[in-house]
Amino acid sequence: MKTGINRQFRLASRPIGDIKESDFEYREEPISQPADGELLVRTIYLSLDPTNRIWMSDIPQYMPPVEIGEVMRGIVTGVVEESQNPDFQRGDLVSGLLGWQDYTIVAENNIPSLSRLPNPLPYPLTAFLGPLGGTGLTAYFGLLEIGQPKAGETVVVSAAAGAVGSMVGQIAKIKGCRAVGITGSDEKCRWLTQELGFDAAINYGTADLEGAIAQACPDGIDVYFDNVGGSILDAVLTKINLNARIPLCGFISNYNTTEPVPGPYNFAQILMKRALVQGFIILDYFPRWSEGIQEMGQWLEQGKIKYALEMVEGLENAPSAVLKLFNGNKKGKLVIKVSEEPS
Amino acid sequence: MKTGINRQFRLASRPIGDIKESDFEYREEPISQPADGELLVRTIYLSLDPTNRIWMSDIPQYMPPVEIGEVMRGIVTGVVEESQNPDFQRGDLVSGLLGWQDYTIVAENNIPSLSRLPNPLPYPLTAFLGPLGGTGLTAYFGLLEIGQPKAGETVVVSAAAGAVGSMVGQIAKIKGCRAVGITGSDEKCRWLTQELGFDAAINYGTADLEGAIAQACPDGIDVYFDNVGGSILDAVLTKINLNARIPLCGFISNYNTTEPVPGPYNFAQILMKRALVQGFIILDYFPRWSEGIQEMGQWLEQGKIKYALEMVEGLENAPSAVLKLFNGNKKGKLVIKVSEEPS
Repeated sequence: MKTGINRQFRLASRPIGDIKESDFEYREEPISQPADGELLVRTIYLSLDPTNRIWMSDIPQYMPPVEIGEVMRGIVTGVVEESQNPDFQRGDLVSGLLGWQDYTIVAENNIPSLSRLPNPLPYPLTAFLGPLGGTGLTAYFGLLEIGQPKAGETVVVSAAAGAVGSMVGQIAKIKGCRAVGITGSDEKCRWLTQELGFDAAINYGTADLEGAIAQACPDGIDVYFDNVGGSILDAVLTKINLNARIPLCGFISNYNTTEPVPGPYNFAQILMKRALVQGFIILDYFPRWSEGIQEMGQWLEQGKIKYALEMVEGLENAPSAVLKLFNGNKKGKLVIKVSEEPS
Repeated sequence: MKTGINRQFRLASRPIGDIKESDFEYREEPISQPADGELLVRTIYLSLDPTNRIWMSDIPQYMPPVEIGEVMRGIVTGVVEESQNPDFQRGDLVSGLLGWQDYTIVAENNIPSLSRLPNPLPYPLTAFLGPLGGTGLTAYFGLLEIGQPKAGETVVVSAAAGAVGSMVGQIAKIKGCRAVGITGSDEKCRWLTQELGFDAAINYGTADLEGAIAQACPDGIDVYFDNVGGSILDAVLTKINLNARIPLCGFISNYNTTEPVPGPYNFAQILMKRALVQGFIILDYFPRWSEGIQEMGQWLEQGKIKYALEMVEGLENAPSAVLKLFNGNKKGKLVIKVSEEPS
C-alpha cells in the first residue's frame, strides 16, 4: 500500500484574461487508496496544453469545465502503482485525463478513457508526450482527416513551433505538400525551416503579414491548420484557394481575452472560396488512436519526424510554466516532469 | 433572321453600399446574329438574385465580376430563337447565365453551361424559376449534401421567406426535421408557418433574437443554412449542438456594406462544438442538376413543396426591382418577366 503525501494544485479562481499563478491553490493530502475496480496512478509527466485554459473558464466548451476547488485537470503520463482492477496491473504505463497532482485515483467509470502504453515501449516514453501523444495525434488526424492535403498543395499552420504545429508541418512534408509555418520569433522560424524541414516560416510580428503570407505561398493556401484564430486567421483567409480546408484546432488568441472578440473580417471568403471550416478535438478520434500511433511511430523511426520537448522539472512549477503556452516562449511540447520514469 | 431592337442594361458603376438604379446604363442595340456554332436566345424570365450584388463588385468572389460597361449578368430562362449549333434548335427552352437584355448571343464555348429544359415541360415553366431552378437546387444540394439533416434534428434557415430559404425549410420538413425560419416581418413569419409548414418562424427584428431562437429550438440547432451572415449567424452560433453543420450559402448582410465587417463574435463556437462550416455554390453541383430536378419535381407533384414568385413585368423595371432583394420587401423568388412564354 502506497502511503505518503500527494501534492496537488486545485483551481482556486477562474482567470480573468491571462492565467495568474494565484488561480491555483497548492494542497497536500495523504495519498488515497484505490477502491475495488479502481487504480492509483503515479504522475510521471504532466502535459501542459493550451486547452487547459479553456477548462479553467466557465464558457461553452467541449467538455465540462474544471470546477472551482477541483484538482486541475491535465493530460498525464503515469504508471499504475496499485491496481484493484483486473484489466491493469502494477507497473502498467498509462496516459489519460488525470490531474495536476502526484497521484490520481482513477475511478472505474473513467478507466475506459485511459490509454495503456505498449509494453515493452517501442519508443522512448517522451515520444508518447509529443508525436505519439495527444498533440501529435491532433496534428495527424486533424490534418489528414479534415485537411485532406494532396501532394503539391500548400499547407499553412499557425503556432507552428508548438507541439501540434510542428507536427502538422512535418506531416504535410511527408505528404508531398509545401509546408509554411507561422510563429512568433525569427529564432523559431529558423528552427522550423532548418531543423524541421518547413519550406518557409513567417514571424507573425512582421509588419506586413498578408504580404509575407503571399510571398511564402505563391500558389495560395489549400489547407490552413488553425491553432490561434484572430488576426492571423484573417490574414490567411485573404489567400485561400478554392475549396480550401481549414481544420480549427485551437483559438489561442481568444483564450485569455476578457472582451468579446470579433470573428474574422474576411469570413465571407469561406463562402466565396467554397471553403470548409471544421472544429475538431482529438477525443473524437480516440477509437483510431492506435492507427495514428502506428503510422506516426513509423515516421519517427524513419527520421521523418523530429520533436522538441520543453521539460520543466517539478510539479511545483506547473502554475508558472503554463504561462509559456501563451507568451510564445517555448518550442515544441511543454511538459512538467513530476517523477522519475520506471527503470 | 430575327431583327429589331435589343434592350439591355449594362453595369455603369460599381455600387457603393446599396445598389442604385444609376449603377445600370440602359442601351438599345440591334439584335445580333448568331455566328457558326452560336445561339440567339430570347429572354423570357430574368431571375434577380442576391448574388447579382456580388458580381457588381470587384471583390474576391467565386467567378469574375461583371466588368464596367458589360451587359449585366443574370440567370435567364429563355427560348432559342435562332440556332447555328447542331445540338439546339429553334424553340428549345434553356436556362443559364446570360444577361439583362431581350436577346443574348450564346458563344460556342458557353453552350456547355446552358441547361436545356425538358420537352415537353412536365411542370409549369415558372417552376423552373423556383423549386426546379438555381435557387431550389441551391436549397436542395446545400441542405442535403452539406447540412446532412437527420430525422428529428432541428434545421434553422435565415432569409427564410426568400427563394432559397423557403425551399430549405420545406425540404427539412420532408426529411422529418423541425424547421425554423428567420425572416424580416411578422407577415412573412405567418406565411412560413401557416402556408409552408415551418414549425416556427422568428422575426429577426425582435428585441431578444437569441432568446427567440432558444425558444424556437428547444433541442438546439443541428443544421443552420445561412443566407445572411452577420448578427443572425452570431445569435445562431450560441445555440448550435455538437457537430452542427452550417452550409454557407450567402452573406446578404455583408453585400452592401462599405466598411470591413467583423466576422461572428461567437466564431469560437465552431471549434467548441466541433461544427462544420462550408461555403458552396450551386454551380459545383451542376453535374447533378437533373437528379435534383427529379426529386424536387416529385415533391412538387405530391404537394409537399409550395413556392411563391414575385413577378415584375418588364425588363425596364429590373434596376428598381433588384433592390427588393435587400430591403426584405418580397416573398419567394423575384423574377422579371421580359417576354411571353411560347404558347
